[in-house]
Amino acid sequence: MTPKVSIIMGSTSDLPIMEKAAKILNEFEIPFEMNALSAHRTPDEVADFATNADKRGIEVIIAGAGMAAHLPGVIAASTSLPVIGVPISASLQGMDALLAIVQMPPAIPVATVGIDAGQNAGLLAVQMLAVGNKELKTKLLTYKADLKTKIVKANEELKHIKYNFKTN
Amino acid sequence: MTPKVSIIMGSTSDLPIMEKAAKILNEFEIPFEMNALSAHRTPDEVADFATNADKRGIEVIIAGAGMAAHLPGVIAASTSLPVIGVPISASLQGMDALLAIVQMPPAIPVATVGIDAGQNAGLLAVQMLAVGNKELKTKLLTYKADLKTKIVKANEELKHIKYNFKTN
Amino acid sequence: MTPKVSIIMGSTSDLPIMEKAAKILNEFEIPFEMNALSAHRTPDEVADFATNADKRGIEVIIAGAGMAAHLPGVIAASTSLPVIGVPISASLQGMDALLAIVQMPPAIPVATVGIDAGQNAGLLAVQMLAVGNKELKTKLLTYKADLKTKIVKANEELKHIKYNFKTN
Amino acid sequence: MTPKVSIIMGSTSDLPIMEKAAKILNEFEIPFEMNALSAHRTPDEVADFATNADKRGIEVIIAGAGMAAHLPGVIAASTSLPVIGVPISASLQGMDALLAIVQMPPAIPVATVGIDAGQNAGLLAVQMLAVGNKELKTKLLTYKADLKTKIVKANEELKHIKYNFKTN
Amino acid sequence: MTPKVSIIMGSTSDLPIMEKAAKILNEFEIPFEMNALSAHRTPDEVADFATNADKRGIEVIIAGAGMAAHLPGVIAASTSLPVIGVPISASLQGMDALLAIVQMPPAIPVATVGIDAGQNAGLLAVQMLAVGNKELKTKLLTYKADLKTKIVKANEELKHIKYNFKTN
Amino acid sequence: MTPKVSIIMGSTSDLPIMEKAAKILNEFEIPFEMNALSAHRTPDEVADFATNADKRGIEVIIAGAGMAAHLPGVIAASTSLPVIGVPISASLQGMDALLAIVQMPPAIPVATVGIDAGQNAGLLAVQMLAVGNKELKTKLLTYKADLKTKIVKANEELKHIKYNFKTN
Amino acid sequence: MTPKVSIIMGSTSDLPIMEKAAKILNEFEIPFEMNALSAHRTPDEVADFATNADKRGIEVIIAGAGMAAHLPGVIAASTSLPVIGVPISASLQGMDALLAIVQMPPAIPVATVGIDAGQNAGLLAVQMLAVGNKELKTKLLTYKADLKTKIVKANEELKHIKYNFKTN
Amino acid sequence: MTPKVSIIMGSTSDLPIMEKAAKILNEFEIPFEMNALSAHRTPDEVADFATNADKRGIEVIIAGAGMAAHLPGVIAASTSLPVIGVPISASLQGMDALLAIVQMPPAIPVATVGIDAGQNAGLLAVQMLAVGNKELKTKLLTYKADLKTKIVKANEELKHIKYNFKTN
Repeated sequence: MTPKVSIIMGSTSDLPIMEKAAKILNEFEIPFEMNALSAHRTPDEVADFATNADKRGIEVIIAGAGMAAHLPGVIAASTSLPVIGVPISASLQGMDALLAIVQMPPAIPVATVGIDAGQNAGLLAVQMLAVGNKELKTKLLTYKADLKTKIVKANEELKHIKYNFKTN
Repeated sequence: MTPKVSIIMGSTSDLPIMEKAAKILNEFEIPFEMNALSAHRTPDEVADFATNADKRGIEVIIAGAGMAAHLPGVIAASTSLPVIGVPISASLQGMDALLAIVQMPPAIPVATVGIDAGQNAGLLAVQMLAVGNKELKTKLLTYKADLKTKIVKANEELKHIKYNFKTN
Repeated sequence: MTPKVSIIMGSTSDLPIMEKAAKILNEFEIPFEMNALSAHRTPDEVADFATNADKRGIEVIIAGAGMAAHLPGVIAASTSLPVIGVPISASLQGMDALLAIVQMPPAIPVATVGIDAGQNAGLLAVQMLAVGNKELKTKLLTYKADLKTKIVKANEELKHIKYNFKTN
Repeated sequence: MTPKVSIIMGSTSDLPIMEKAAKILNEFEIPFEMNALSAHRTPDEVADFATNADKRGIEVIIAGAGMAAHLPGVIAASTSLPVIGVPISASLQGMDALLAIVQMPPAIPVATVGIDAGQNAGLLAVQMLAVGNKELKTKLLTYKADLKTKIVKANEELKHIKYNFKTN
Repeated sequence: MTPKVSIIMGSTSDLPIMEKAAKILNEFEIPFEMNALSAHRTPDEVADFATNADKRGIEVIIAGAGMAAHLPGVIAASTSLPVIGVPISASLQGMDALLAIVQMPPAIPVATVGIDAGQNAGLLAVQMLAVGNKELKTKLLTYKADLKTKIVKANEELKHIKYNFKTN
Repeated sequence: MTPKVSIIMGSTSDLPIMEKAAKILNEFEIPFEMNALSAHRTPDEVADFATNADKRGIEVIIAGAGMAAHLPGVIAASTSLPVIGVPISASLQGMDALLAIVQMPPAIPVATVGIDAGQNAGLLAVQMLAVGNKELKTKLLTYKADLKTKIVKANEELKHIKYNFKTN
Repeated sequence: MTPKVSIIMGSTSDLPIMEKAAKILNEFEIPFEMNALSAHRTPDEVADFATNADKRGIEVIIAGAGMAAHLPGVIAASTSLPVIGVPISASLQGMDALLAIVQMPPAIPVATVGIDAGQNAGLLAVQMLAVGNKELKTKLLTYKADLKTKIVKANEELKHIKYNFKTN
Repeated sequence: MTPKVSIIMGSTSDLPIMEKAAKILNEFEIPFEMNALSAHRTPDEVADFATNADKRGIEVIIAGAGMAAHLPGVIAASTSLPVIGVPISASLQGMDALLAIVQMPPAIPVATVGIDAGQNAGLLAVQMLAVGNKELKTKLLTYKADLKTKIVKANEELKHIKYNFKTN
């Protein structure tokens, strides 16, 4: 099946974070691909990838990188597809990566999610694909409802903990 | 015409930044609406807006706020539409707003752009609407080409400046 | 007994911090309740809670959250009760949560305590309840006196350590 | 009339910020006093003030200071009344004052509001006084409703601005 | 022997850092005392200590504290003796303590050393005592010479390591 | 008269800050000298200065510098006299200078004052010179008393301002 | 004359900073070129430039950019020539640009100078060209000597200022 | 063989970082030396080293230091050779060292690499030595090609991981 989302990471060491995006896409049954491409070590491959992603049927790109994280911005420079950037906390708790991804100059946006927020990157990609797609929107609403159920249940448990305190 | 993008700002003082998003949408001839709704002063209106935006035909939401900027996240909590967050530099150079918008918990992403980056918020909205929309994609490519032309021209001017230095 | 203080946390993972507030309330024999409600995953429940807390007899709300911590501010938006915010150090050492809680816009204050300072949140709640309550004020003075006794005792021990140095 | 709230500032240069708290208290017809006392230049006066505030009928203290802002914490050390701290942006955009006020050690809380947030300090004091005071609670609800009216009106104006864009 | 230096710490948990100052004073055979006094839990004791230190023969005070570290500044407020402040890294890597100690308002200086720099606090105290004291100055010069000898020796060892690299 | 304090600045552009130290020394009638010496542009002169300051009768050195502020530390490396460092806010609001001055390695302390705190540097020098000097100590106590008088007077004025509010 | 140094800036708005590098190169009579090329708006031109700079006789590249400053790193990715990066303070006082330039991943260094430090970028380029070039090294030593002369002269003037203080 | 690069570190505890530079130089068969010299503990040795490095045939200096990292700047002050600075993360995650190294004043550049980036310091030294050296440039291009091969291979592996997800 032609992938609709391409997950790119600057280094295979970013896999534990970027896998979370992949898991979300799997959950929503959205075909995707996952590659390691470095803005600094394989610049031509990154340019080729970005220039051709649209033609290959990719609709959304997720790019994660740490430190002076250029990958999402460099990809955004060569495509008109929306690019989701994931700052990886490889140094300075991820503040360097966050600023290097989010502070893009006018005209070349990167849709930045939180530090190490691979899961949210995956969900944001689903939300983008759901633009004009009723079926996917329905799935997203179900997903939200499930989240609520979980926390409501957690709440129930807390009420029991509370009474333990009271009797202290 | 039914608006496809809704631009929300926490305060009318954010208008100079959020107008830039509106200008981009105008340029791409995308119908939009613009409202001031505060997560803190009009919470019920925000919840109503977020819950019903989808049904009203809105496809993408752009929300800008400063300081402890809760507006984008609060809207994201009550909709499955993609929410673009614009941190406004009302204090601490916008670092507070950036962190309060981008560091969302798992499952509720906000697509964050740079501090005061209203223009990029508008473009990101266009990119999202262009998912599966060839015509809009073509317009985006033209927009990119125009940007390149401008900077190439600026380059030409720099070459003349350079010779002024040389003769010094 | 009707709870006078409501302790809310964004996630059950915040329990180890928020329990400290509960312990203080127990110590002062103030009835309380403890719930997990997420500004992002259960927004309607949060709004309901905040809107009705006053009618249910709650006098003070303590809300803890990490990252883009919206919970205290979102609750404050829908109640006139004082809301105490506890920034949780789930990321960036809690700086994101601190700014997302304390930098509230004009008219919607959140009484913010230090990062992970569950104990101080509990004490601040007691101080608020002691407004116009002589008995509770007396208890607070006793609590302060006990603290002093402890540190004076610690001082005694230090004096002995000192002489160990001297003989080196 | 005996003041119920005492507004203390580290220096008269903090007056423009701290006046905002006074204006709120005036609006709610709460008797207050306003003094300049420095934790560093008049330490004995600060200690006397803090030790005796309770006996003089003060119920809530608001203390504002900039830089290494010790005033709120030093007052909190010698009273059991709730102390609201206002970080003043005299240097480093107020980050030094914020941390010096909010990061109090266990057992001595300071209810910290945002940087230069004199108005919110005043409102928080009103909320504390409203604990167990129905009349004041009603006034606070009216105040909130007025805020909402203002922003809803601002929203109306934005709708007109929007159409100006459209015709461009 | 009457102590000339008083080492004060906000909490006994600061002992591992403050002991380093004590060790330096021992090394230079300067009589000292060591106490735990909290600006927040034992404010009267701190004021008494600071007001009377001079009369008791103390010449220099070293005060260490973490978080919203008020202790050095509060002591400086009630004495004309030089106060050396040691920021302790109890939270935020010590940045809160550093700013809360060093950013003192005009007229009340605190001589701040680095984060957790107990040893340097001790040495700075010795340097202050050496003002107008030839013997102590000579000891300080010897101390500096010893440091140099150590690092020159370390250098010799590095030269051997280097050749190991070369043969790789 | 032989200067007892030497005020060094990295650049003459630091004069407005460093003059404040000079004014304090004048006020206390302490002979001083003032020089511009750069750790980076005149390193040999700095080394000569630091090595010989003691022999020339200097008792305390005040050194101010901005950006990567090496001057205080470089001087401290070549003298056993106490060195007071003044971080100048030439960039990054002075945070770079503060860290470059205060975070000295073990064994080479710099007594750091606040950002741009020339006045406090002067007072700290006076406090150091007052070690074992009764007359200077008395002058310092008078100085402190005068400060208190000023703020007490400011307080009086505030009381009148307060009543203006009341009648509003 | 074939340029040996290429000065690239992300936007013509960076010219006031980057001109300072050009002025230094003029002073040392080193042929250079100056261009505006954007990593984000003209990515292909940047790649072409970087790939071919070496063949065109360029020996050192200076690249300045602000915000999420990718230009220096992107150029470094496609050349083996040394790349000097100049962080421009377009936002967040240049901290974003500094981190986005200096925190390069292993194997792709960028020689970073201070925020807005165009002059130092020029000098560093001269130092690199002086590797193995005696004549240029001599010029650099003369340049350093001139700097020293200037500051020594400034010192003379300060001595006069000092006496003005004394007579106050 | 006469060393062309001198690697200096402020303390032998910096060896694990600085060794990475040495390994790169070994890989490129560039003769080097490695020394521990402290700007603060052995200032005269540092000055001697910096003043004479050029005469001894050194072409590039690499200097690493942590905290208030003065070593690279102090060396740069006394030589015209290019100095590469390596900020070591001994405290505050290396932010103090980064700012203390990179924010050099006009006229004395330090070529700063990332925090703990010993390997990049080594490569930057090789790039500087390759100015006007074809053979070394060829080696650098081979090095870059090898890096690309490695990441392309890593990419292949990722493709297999991807299919594991798909079948989940």
